Amino acid sequence: MPDRRITSRHSERVKQAARLHNARDRAEQHRFAIDGIREIGRAIDGGAEILEAFACDELLAAGEARSLVARLEASDVPVWRVDRDVFGKVAYGARHEGLVAIARLPEFPLAALKLPAAPLVAVLVGIEKPGNVGAVLRSADGAGMSAVVVVDAGTDLLNPNTIRSSLGTVFTVPIAVATGAETLTWLREQGVTIYAARPDAQRNYDMADFVGPVAIVLGSEAEGLGADWHAPDVRAIKLPMHGAADSLNVSAAAAVLMYEARRQRQL
Amino acid sequence: MPDRRITSRHSERVKQAARLHNARDRAEQHRFAIDGIREIGRAIDGGAEILEAFACDELLAAGEARSLVARLEASDVPVWRVDRDVFGKVAYGARHEGLVAIARLPEFPLAALKLPAAPLVAVLVGIEKPGNVGAVLRSADGAGMSAVVVVDAGTDLLNPNTIRSSLGTVFTVPIAVATGAETLTWLREQGVTIYAARPDAQRNYDMADFVGPVAIVLGSEAEGLGADWHAPDVRAIKLPMHGAADSLNVSAAAAVLMYEARRQRQL
Repeated sequence: MPDRRITSRHSERVKQAARLHNARDRAEQHRFAIDGIREIGRAIDGGAEILEAFACDELLAAGEARSLVARLEASDVPVWRVDRDVFGKVAYGARHEGLVAIARLPEFPLAALKLPAAPLVAVLVGIEKPGNVGAVLRSADGAGMSAVVVVDAGTDLLNPNTIRSSLGTVFTVPIAVATGAETLTWLREQGVTIYAARPDAQRNYDMADFVGPVAIVLGSEAEGLGADWHAPDVRAIKLPMHGAADSLNVSAAAAVLMYEARRQRQL
Repeated sequence: MPDRRITSRHSERVKQAARLHNARDRAEQHRFAIDGIREIGRAIDGGAEILEAFACDELLAAGEARSLVARLEASDVPVWRVDRDVFGKVAYGARHEGLVAIARLPEFPLAALKLPAAPLVAVLVGIEKPGNVGAVLRSADGAGMSAVVVVDAGTDLLNPNTIRSSLGTVFTVPIAVATGAETLTWLREQGVTIYAARPDAQRNYDMADFVGPVAIVLGSEAEGLGADWHAPDVRAIKLPMHGAADSLNVSAAAAVLMYEARRQRQL
């Protein structure tokens, strides 16, 4: 087995990996970093193409973490051994589980989504905080959504904060990234009924029929949904607000709507 | 009118207010800080006792913000005028709306909660992240919960991050802070049916009857619910998980459960 130790923070390979914390570098390198055992496991399960990895033996827990390293090496992925200091440069944030994988940045085309009969699609429009996008993806995974379409996000989808707050479900939920116009056209082609969450809607969300082919569209709290989403075939629904605030956090609203759809389908 | 200008960051009054960013200082001073126009407005509506405030004229927007200052002054609350530099010391985080109010730290006794007939109570056990507590409070406000009981939180409830993520609903939702044992005793005295969200439950949440007097208990994702909450009269319910992850974020789970209760009550 080749010597895969890297001992210097100034190694070109380490510096390149560390730069993947920035969106621009992810786009330029066509690569992104996955930090954390569960997240890397879900990425592999979801078909991510892992190019290399950095492992810190001192930090790797026994069990799942070490079998994951073995699994990567068995697939001929180079796993570079680094000390805590070098690892700290590649890792993101405070939780260090001893393994960071570098993967090829995927495309998320609408055309690649394969929908089942009577699909249940979520559409997120203009949600800028990576933590919110990740939280919605985690709930979408739980509710068993057929797909999530991300429109006009403020960041790339494989932002480290999105990966983390999604608990790695960003790799397992079928996702597309598209413009609003592309998404509307595609939804109409799929023959789904489009429901958009809007505070000014007349109809409460539980009166929507989520049993047929359906899309649930959510906008950002600050911006709401643009003119595209006020078309006559887009049905507005709302969550009733009984207190002082006039809206829910978008990830709370998404969870309520997606689980109501699932409930109507008999869970 | 007395001269209420403070021009130095080293003013004792400014230093004392700035120290309220720390939980220990809040406990020692029996005071806490509220940053933001909407949040201060909701605090006043909720009956908070405002002791003084710091206003930065350069940052205060016209309209709501300035009428709030006038409203405080009309109630004989001292409003200290400070420049951007001094304001930056008192303010918390990056969003500066030009007004920080200092209020007396309230108690949150169970005995002070006044429940309606057939109350709908949420109980949060061991939720450590202030942002999660705040997000649940915001959803509890939206769902019109009768009360929220906070058990074993990792921080004080009037942490700046809780205030912010709750959008100030921490001041408008009826809240108590208590131990698990106290809360269980109190719930039994109130005659409510206790449902606890647990991943190992047999029963799906939508099979629970939320129409009568009900408490919904949620634990932390990491720790779950302790032995107290496994008593025979605590009914376990679960959210079905259809994907790769085995749980929802606690604020997403709380939103789904509270809105299901509201839905069963015909919204």
